[in-house]
Amino acid sequence: MPEPESQAKLLSGELENALDFAKGKGLITAIAQDADSGEVLMVANMNQESLAKTLELGEAVYWSRSRQKLWHKGEESGHLQKVRGIYLDCDGDALLLKVEQIGGAACHTGKRSCFFRKIEQNRLIDLGEQVFDPKEVYPQ
Amino acid sequence: MPEPESQAKLLSGELENALDFAKGKGLITAIAQDADSGEVLMVANMNQESLAKTLELGEAVYWSRSRQKLWHKGEESGHLQKVRGIYLDCDGDALLLKVEQIGGAACHTGKRSCFFRKIEQNRLIDLGEQVFDPKEVYPQ
Repeated sequence: MPEPESQAKLLSGELENALDFAKGKGLITAIAQDADSGEVLMVANMNQESLAKTLELGEAVYWSRSRQKLWHKGEESGHLQKVRGIYLDCDGDALLLKVEQIGGAACHTGKRSCFFRKIEQNRLIDLGEQVFDPKEVYPQ
Repeated sequence: MPEPESQAKLLSGELENALDFAKGKGLITAIAQDADSGEVLMVANMNQESLAKTLELGEAVYWSRSRQKLWHKGEESGHLQKVRGIYLDCDGDALLLKVEQIGGAACHTGKRSCFFRKIEQNRLIDLGEQVFDPKEVYPQ
C-alpha cells in the first residue's frame, strides 16, 4: 500500500526544517499585528495546513482549536486579514503576521484588537475601540 | 491535613474570573511588545504564579515549558523587561505585555526581536538587528 501523503509536502523544505510543530502537538502560535499601526490585533494557532493556505491565499487562515477545523479569518464577517509579511521566531514555534485588517477590527466583539482589557491594580479596564456591532456582523 | 494552598489566591478574583488557564492546561500565551516602537519582541507562556510575580515585580516573569520553572526574563543576561502595561484578550487565554526592553534586545540570539526571519517565496531571510553578541552575554 502506498504511504499516506505526508503533511510535510504542504511547505517547502526550508520552512519545514525551520518550523517546530512538534512542540505544540501540531500547532504553532500565530500573532496578527496591524502592518501600519503596529497594534497587536489577536493571537491564534496554525497547523501546517493553515500556514500553507495562508501562504497560498495571502490571507490569514488559522486552525480553530475549539471547532477543530481551518478558520479562514473573516470568512463569515468579511473582515479578512490581508497578509503583508510573515516572520518566524528564533525557535520556530511562533509566527508574526503583519496584516491589513479589512473592516478595521479583528475581534469578534467588534473591538479593533482582542487585547482591549487592561489590567490596572488587579482590575480590568475596557479600553477598546468599538469598530462594529457584532449583532449586525454575525446575525443570529 | 490542611488543603494545599490554592493557586487561585495568587490573583484577584476579577483576574481569576477573566483568565482562562484551563484551556492551555495551566498556561496562557504572553506576547511582549516594545511599548515605544510597537515591535513585537517575543512570545512565551505564563502560569498563574508567573503572572502574579510579573504584577508584583513590574518585570516580565514567564513560565519556561522546557525547564518547567519560573523564568524571570533577563535574570541571566540582565536584559529585563520592565512592564508598562498588561492587556488581556477577549477569551482570557492570552496577554499582551507592553515592555521596556532593557539592553535593547529580547532574543537569546542577540537580535532585537525573536521574529527576525521573514518568509519570502517559501524561503527564510534574516532581517534581524544584532544588538549584542550572545557569547559575551551568556558565557559558557
